[in-house]
Amino acid sequence: MSDIFFEELSLPNPTINLAICTTSPYQQLAEIIEKTGQYIVDDKPDVVCVWGDTNSSLGAAIAANKTHTMLCHIEAGCRSGDFRMAEEYNRILIDNLSDLLFPVAQCDSLNLTNEKIHGRITFLGDPLFDAFLYNRNRVLSNWIKTMSDFADFSILLTLHRAENVDSPVIIKRILKAINSIRSGKVLFPIHPRTRKMIEEFGLADLVDNEVVTTTEPLGYFEMLKILDQCDAVITDSGGLQKEAFFAQKTCITLRKSTEHLDTIRLKVNILIDPESESLDNLSEICSNAKKIGDTFKYISEMPYGDGHSSIQIVNAILDEISNNKTIIK
Amino acid sequence: MSDIFFEELSLPNPTINLAICTTSPYQQLAEIIEKTGQYIVDDKPDVVCVWGDTNSSLGAAIAANKTHTMLCHIEAGCRSGDFRMAEEYNRILIDNLSDLLFPVAQCDSLNLTNEKIHGRITFLGDPLFDAFLYNRNRVLSNWIKTMSDFADFSILLTLHRAENVDSPVIIKRILKAINSIRSGKVLFPIHPRTRKMIEEFGLADLVDNEVVTTTEPLGYFEMLKILDQCDAVITDSGGLQKEAFFAQKTCITLRKSTEHLDTIRLKVNILIDPESESLDNLSEICSNAKKIGDTFKYISEMPYGDGHSSIQIVNAILDEISNNKTIIK
Repeated sequence: MSDIFFEELSLPNPTINLAICTTSPYQQLAEIIEKTGQYIVDDKPDVVCVWGDTNSSLGAAIAANKTHTMLCHIEAGCRSGDFRMAEEYNRILIDNLSDLLFPVAQCDSLNLTNEKIHGRITFLGDPLFDAFLYNRNRVLSNWIKTMSDFADFSILLTLHRAENVDSPVIIKRILKAINSIRSGKVLFPIHPRTRKMIEEFGLADLVDNEVVTTTEPLGYFEMLKILDQCDAVITDSGGLQKEAFFAQKTCITLRKSTEHLDTIRLKVNILIDPESESLDNLSEICSNAKKIGDTFKYISEMPYGDGHSSIQIVNAILDEISNNKTIIK
Repeated sequence: MSDIFFEELSLPNPTINLAICTTSPYQQLAEIIEKTGQYIVDDKPDVVCVWGDTNSSLGAAIAANKTHTMLCHIEAGCRSGDFRMAEEYNRILIDNLSDLLFPVAQCDSLNLTNEKIHGRITFLGDPLFDAFLYNRNRVLSNWIKTMSDFADFSILLTLHRAENVDSPVIIKRILKAINSIRSGKVLFPIHPRTRKMIEEFGLADLVDNEVVTTTEPLGYFEMLKILDQCDAVITDSGGLQKEAFFAQKTCITLRKSTEHLDTIRLKVNILIDPESESLDNLSEICSNAKKIGDTFKYISEMPYGDGHSSIQIVNAILDEISNNKTIIK
């Protein structure tokens, strides 16, 4: 699924692919540490940069630490407080191993200070916001809205988290609540695993009907278009909560907790625990989505930086490397 | 070197030996995660207990986390603040992965609270203090002091840390300072690596002379005897700092920092950075060792518990397992 991002965003192909093929998380992590460690020993990079909270990031972070290589963590300080998520442990471990930490939101920076993390913390904003602004301008200037396939849809829905889609009870509750929406049609780019579960649980009548239309997963450019077009986003994804914020659209997050606390604090992201009765309010919140979205007009701060974070982060890392090299060890 | 401890303390042999044979720290860690993870998957233990801050403890902790097994850390919360030590990272990572944390000293408990570590923290004292009391009584009651080989020595010295023994400048500074001691003879049970370095650097004349006598590394029982006999301990070891405290002897720690802050706070452990000029005071501090040791008479608190920690920790873990089993998941 990552190929389309490399293509659309004109990213260069990776120099190496570690070809990790194990499946258990503990085996996967061991293999990532082993192979990344070997790469570091052979190639002797000045710095290892990792992003986010995956096992790949944790494995590379541990390999950097055990080979005494400078470690830099972008998207540091994210915390959901939910320790049932493997990612929550990964985040905390990577942050504690890092020499340079770049939180991408103001509240994440505060988390790191509160936990007395020892590395150097620098808040310079979110490179994803840079990417959003740059690509939105490219995409939308060449796009005639009235010709769009998405014109019919005012709500974007994505679901993929195990706790939502692997339980027949929960996914049925969610899809029923979605079907109660009367304020607009719902576009549902569907994750292959989610589609499989819906079929397995015999819930196909709750999608591809008058309210909900499924499509294959969309590329980044298609997502930018539907984000521009819609009134509200309903999701359990981490990234899409932020992208809805960048696009100034109301977000409804179907999780018990979120690590994007600034969006909650600014009242444009509404957290609904899919196991709770609050799910019954989904339709009403969607009816008010435009009104909630008006809140964006009154937000004077931008918790994700000024849209020039990437270059500032790169410069900060290069400065650190050149400072380090002038110190005689 | 661990065989003598199993023998003297009548410990049962390990059920399994993972036979880790790699040498680079990153490969070692990867192999420990892989093999411990496999063991956990096969054997399905209710809990994984790890002690201290070694790569073995970290690897087992990661394996427990990635296989969703309850993790318990004994000797949690130790912090030196010195991130040049691999152990400092290991400590912090293990603590952040743990469900149950048993700090063994009061200050360690406070460290965990300050860092907002999420697991359950219970201070029940130090099992090493239990072991010290139990074995000291066994050993000393059968020991006639006047017949001891150690009668001549009033100072116990150990050195093994890379930063002290791998640098010819530092180890020479330390041994010269030791040779300036006039208040008593020094017994120096010598780590094989330290002996190798002393020979390599041509410093043999600074040991096995009128002031310093080297011996092979001693077993636990022999250490208890010399601890009972001496006036002061000079060391760069973590464990021996605590054992000196248990034996109520003045300790001089040759490091930039220590994780046993309670011993420093109570003024019976004196920290000397071997690279600093404070090393010149070593002889004078040794002359005052007995006087400094008098401080123990006025210490009313015991920061390492009441000597019955082991059984309390075992009971706390068993309680947690049985509580966990009654919860329907």
